[in-house]
Amino acid sequence: MRFTKMEGLGNDYVYVNCFREKVYDPEILARLVSDRHRGIGGDGLILIGPSARADFNMDIYNADGSRAEMCGNGIRCLGKYVYDHGMTEKTEFTVETQAGIKRLRCILQDGRVVAVCVDMGRPDIGAAVEMAVLPDETVDFVRVSMGNPHAVVWVDDIYVCQMETLGPEMEVHPMFPNRTNVEFVQIVDEDHMRMRVWERGSGETFACGTGACAAVAAGIAAGRTRDSVKVSLLGGTLDIDYDRQNETMYMTGPAREVFEGWTDIY
Amino acid sequence: MRFTKMEGLGNDYVYVNCFREKVYDPEILARLVSDRHRGIGGDGLILIGPSARADFNMDIYNADGSRAEMCGNGIRCLGKYVYDHGMTEKTEFTVETQAGIKRLRCILQDGRVVAVCVDMGRPDIGAAVEMAVLPDETVDFVRVSMGNPHAVVWVDDIYVCQMETLGPEMEVHPMFPNRTNVEFVQIVDEDHMRMRVWERGSGETFACGTGACAAVAAGIAAGRTRDSVKVSLLGGTLDIDYDRQNETMYMTGPAREVFEGWTDIY
Repeated sequence: MRFTKMEGLGNDYVYVNCFREKVYDPEILARLVSDRHRGIGGDGLILIGPSARADFNMDIYNADGSRAEMCGNGIRCLGKYVYDHGMTEKTEFTVETQAGIKRLRCILQDGRVVAVCVDMGRPDIGAAVEMAVLPDETVDFVRVSMGNPHAVVWVDDIYVCQMETLGPEMEVHPMFPNRTNVEFVQIVDEDHMRMRVWERGSGETFACGTGACAAVAAGIAAGRTRDSVKVSLLGGTLDIDYDRQNETMYMTGPAREVFEGWTDIY
Repeated sequence: MRFTKMEGLGNDYVYVNCFREKVYDPEILARLVSDRHRGIGGDGLILIGPSARADFNMDIYNADGSRAEMCGNGIRCLGKYVYDHGMTEKTEFTVETQAGIKRLRCILQDGRVVAVCVDMGRPDIGAAVEMAVLPDETVDFVRVSMGNPHAVVWVDDIYVCQMETLGPEMEVHPMFPNRTNVEFVQIVDEDHMRMRVWERGSGETFACGTGACAAVAAGIAAGRTRDSVKVSLLGGTLDIDYDRQNETMYMTGPAREVFEGWTDIY
C-alpha cells in the first residue's frame, strides 16, 4: 500500500489515496498504521476518495480505530495533498466530511501548497459567561459550539493555568452532557492570543483548529479582540478570521508532507 | 533521501543505506527523523555503510542525536536489511559497531529473513549477590557486564515489582559510577524467564538484548536456568543461548521491515 505521511501543527496522519488504493477495513488499518513503534506512526488514518457532493471526500479514523467527524489540521493537509499531487487544478475546492462539506483555499508558493485556508462554519456562542463548580475552585467559561463543543477559559498565563487538573475536570463536568474540549486562552493583544487546548478524549494536544475558532469567537463576543486574530498554539500558529457578512470563521494554517512510503500493512 | 523503517520487539529505527545515500550530519538528521509527530518517527537512526574490518558497518544515533555503541534489536534488523536487499548472499556475516565486530546469522523462511542470531560476546559476572541500599528498601542484585552495565534483580512477579521506583533509583545509585541498566527477572522455569527492563537514559523499554543476555548469564551462574532460555519481554520473545565452549551468548530474535519511504528531510 502506498501512503503519505503529513502533518499540520504537529498533528500527523497517514494519508491513503483511495482513487488508487483499496482499503478493506479502515478501522483495523487505522490501528495498525498509527502504532508509533510497530506501524507507520500517526494520530490516525485519513482516506482521500471521490464524493458525489463535493470535489473530494475525507474519512478520518483515529489511532484507536474510531471515526472522527472532522479535523482542521487533517483537512489542511488533504488540501495540500490533492493539489500538489495534481488531483485538481483548482486552488479552491470542496471536501465532504462527516461534519458536512468544507470549502478549502490553497495558498501557493513556487507552485506548491504551503498553507490552506478552511471555512470552518458558523460559531454558536452560549451565554456570555457560565460557571463550572469544580472540586477545588469555580471556573468561568464561555460555551461555544463549532459543530463540536468547546469551553473557553480566559487566563492570565497559559503556562501557569493548571490545565492538567482543570482540563480533565471540565471535560467530564455534568454541564457538558457530551463532554467538552477546553481552551485556556491568554489575550496578548486584540490581534493575538496564546492558547493551550485540552481535547475531549485525547488530553492536551499541540493544536486544535475548531478550538482556535471558538476562542476567537469568544474574544470577539467579549469585545476583547478584532475579527482577525493570530492564535499561537504549542504546535504553531493559526490565523483565524471572522467573516461577519457570512457569519463564518476562516482558519489558515500550514500543511506539510513529511514522507511518502510503501508498506505491506494493509 | 530513501530510507527504511524497521523494528525488532517494538524497538524501531530509521535505516539509511549509505552505500547509496549520503548523510552529512547524522546527529541532526537523527533528531529530525526520530520526531514521532513531525519526522519519520523512531527510536533513532541507523546508518549502514562499508567497513574495512567487517562485511558492513553500523552507526547508531539515538533520537536525541547522541551516539549509541550497539543495539541488539537494531543489529538484527540491519542483518535482515542487507540480506533481503541483496547486499550480501551470505547468511552469516560480520558487522562493525562502536562496541566491536559482531557476528550475525540470518534465519530464512521463503528466502527472506525472519529472525537473526547475534553473537553478543562474553558475559562478565560480578560477585554472586550485591546489595543496593535505596531510600525505602534494600535490593539484592547480580552485576553483569555485556560490554554495558547491568543489574539483575530476581522478582516473584514482574508486574508487581515496583520497577517504576526501583529502576530509576538503582540506575543512578553510587554503586554504578557509569549508571546501569536494571533487569527485573522472574524465573518461570529453568527454560523460561519473564523480564522487564529499565534502560539507562531511556527508562522502561519494550526489550533489551544485552539485558536478556545478562539475565540468563545470572540465571546460569545461580544454577537456576539451563544454558538455553526463552526470555519473554514486553515487546516479545528472545532466545538466549550460552555457548560454554566459546564463553559467548547468542541472542536470536525477530526483525521486521515496516515500510520503505522517501523524504525531503536530509
